[in-house]
Amino acid sequence: MSYSDIDTPAVLVDLDIAEANIDKFQAHCDRHGLAVRPHIKTHKLPMLARRQIEAGAIGITCQKVSEAEAMIAGGGIEDVLITYNIIGERKLAHLRALADKVRLSVVADNSVTVDGLSAAFADAPKPLPVLVECDTGAHRCGVQTGEAAVALARHIDAQPGLVFGGLMTYPPVGREADVQAWLTDAKQQVEAAGLEVPVISNGGSPGLWRAQDVPVATEYRIGTYVYNDRSLEALGVCTWDDCALTVLATVVSVPAGDRAVIDAGTKVLTSDLLGLDGHGHVLGRPDIKVAGLSEEHGVLLADTIGLRVGDRVRIVPNHACVVSNMVDEVQLVRGEETLGPEPVAARGKVT
Amino acid sequence: MSYSDIDTPAVLVDLDIAEANIDKFQAHCDRHGLAVRPHIKTHKLPMLARRQIEAGAIGITCQKVSEAEAMIAGGGIEDVLITYNIIGERKLAHLRALADKVRLSVVADNSVTVDGLSAAFADAPKPLPVLVECDTGAHRCGVQTGEAAVALARHIDAQPGLVFGGLMTYPPVGREADVQAWLTDAKQQVEAAGLEVPVISNGGSPGLWRAQDVPVATEYRIGTYVYNDRSLEALGVCTWDDCALTVLATVVSVPAGDRAVIDAGTKVLTSDLLGLDGHGHVLGRPDIKVAGLSEEHGVLLADTIGLRVGDRVRIVPNHACVVSNMVDEVQLVRGEETLGPEPVAARGKVT
Repeated sequence: MSYSDIDTPAVLVDLDIAEANIDKFQAHCDRHGLAVRPHIKTHKLPMLARRQIEAGAIGITCQKVSEAEAMIAGGGIEDVLITYNIIGERKLAHLRALADKVRLSVVADNSVTVDGLSAAFADAPKPLPVLVECDTGAHRCGVQTGEAAVALARHIDAQPGLVFGGLMTYPPVGREADVQAWLTDAKQQVEAAGLEVPVISNGGSPGLWRAQDVPVATEYRIGTYVYNDRSLEALGVCTWDDCALTVLATVVSVPAGDRAVIDAGTKVLTSDLLGLDGHGHVLGRPDIKVAGLSEEHGVLLADTIGLRVGDRVRIVPNHACVVSNMVDEVQLVRGEETLGPEPVAARGKVT
Repeated sequence: MSYSDIDTPAVLVDLDIAEANIDKFQAHCDRHGLAVRPHIKTHKLPMLARRQIEAGAIGITCQKVSEAEAMIAGGGIEDVLITYNIIGERKLAHLRALADKVRLSVVADNSVTVDGLSAAFADAPKPLPVLVECDTGAHRCGVQTGEAAVALARHIDAQPGLVFGGLMTYPPVGREADVQAWLTDAKQQVEAAGLEVPVISNGGSPGLWRAQDVPVATEYRIGTYVYNDRSLEALGVCTWDDCALTVLATVVSVPAGDRAVIDAGTKVLTSDLLGLDGHGHVLGRPDIKVAGLSEEHGVLLADTIGLRVGDRVRIVPNHACVVSNMVDEVQLVRGEETLGPEPVAARGKVT
């Protein structure tokens, strides 16, 4: 499969594989009574978000307001959770406008964020649900204790324009029992304080097949599963055949018998390692190491490289989400069939 | 300097610093009789390329045809070297069209590339200069020996539509004597074969102040020097005051006394480490480590973080060039004065 009508480097998305990934995880969550709220960071494509919703997802997750705006512009998406502390007048004005278009909720882990949200939504026709972000062990954002969750939930509940929306966590990988204990304790404390906890939002692709091991959660946010990548293959949660996103590259130089250079570097594959050695997996050539990247070159090494200038290779990147963000358009395919380019609508939306 | 009128995260470019960097290196090369051919990969801005040419540069360097197209679209750039093996009918057709607009030259390290170039330029009104790329120790692309350089130079010289343009190398860092020896030998061998060597193109920002230590070279290609970055500060070739590109970010969470989280992650700062520990330098706070990035979050650690939600920080990234490529526009400033956004015209041009 050389996709000779596609110029390289190119990011290919196999829709057959992506759709199968969507349906498989939706079925898994349906069996366990868990709502699915896909994180669009992986594909950044409204068409795939709509496909996730058709499969049964309750809405989407975004991390930035500008991402949400780009995702809903084409219609068909009615429910958005932005899992981010949104701060600053410009962002809050955009958020307020978004709330007129979709069913919106956000998260916060501090009172400065909450007070800003309240100022923006005090005169809104309906209150904005704000979930308390909880640090259950990943040590990124989040309140540190159940007591702090209660305090922030009460603060949200007391502010004009807001309503306490529940608890949310970006969990540590592989520690489902700890996450379950943390969130159960926090839920009980919040309820003891007289507040309902309508949503408990957990997530993460590495733990997708153990999503049910945090049964206190009501919904699961998940991004990478739609494409999968080398990091998830290494964790054993998918196979190479489940990887929907690949980078198509051309060999531009074969300087030595053990080395070839391709026309894809960090500007497509990125430098994300995610703990792995090397920068990707060359489909059909597990003996090749993607040993080094500069911006426009990728250096492939093998005992016998066996490639010629002009040959094409397909690479499963370490991290699919960040690769989507490098290109203005991806090339849609189904197996060997090429379907044409699709603009990455939410690429580069960082604000 | 909080640049309160700029939404975050944002990539700031201080033109005062960039212009000083341009002028300082141009003066250095003028003293040593070395032509300067800036690599636009760092800024991707036609306005700064024109400024480099005004300062005395002989033209620009690009790595991809689509980059060159984006850079020359606004005018004022008349000489482009594309330091890449250009392969494939679509790229060659674009290259052929480019040759009608600017004084163009390219490189090749193999006969497949050369034969493709010849097919595209056989009927061109003037021949395309093709330089032989030489691997002087960096082990990316390039012919491996002086003998191979001679063979490829002869092959170029024999092809319709092409003319041998000289030698080019992407050199190993800190090994100027080896590069000088390699190129001197190759030059002598090519001349002994009856061909002139009009250009010998060397480059690289890490070795900028030792550019004259490869005196066989006639020109120097250089990119990062225009902005500088944490990698070059670590090498001692610039100071923080010479860093023109910074990332402006807002603190969105302070979960613990030793930790703050900012709204800039790999989608702005990238994962490029370039051998460094951590992901950037927080100006004015050398005690802070930019310890971890996910796509939209940056985790800052310090014994006492001393930041509040809503505070702004400015970060010198590890690698400036890749940061330019993450954003649709940079924010131009001069000191505390904000000048407005500038589109990154050649962002994402990978073909």
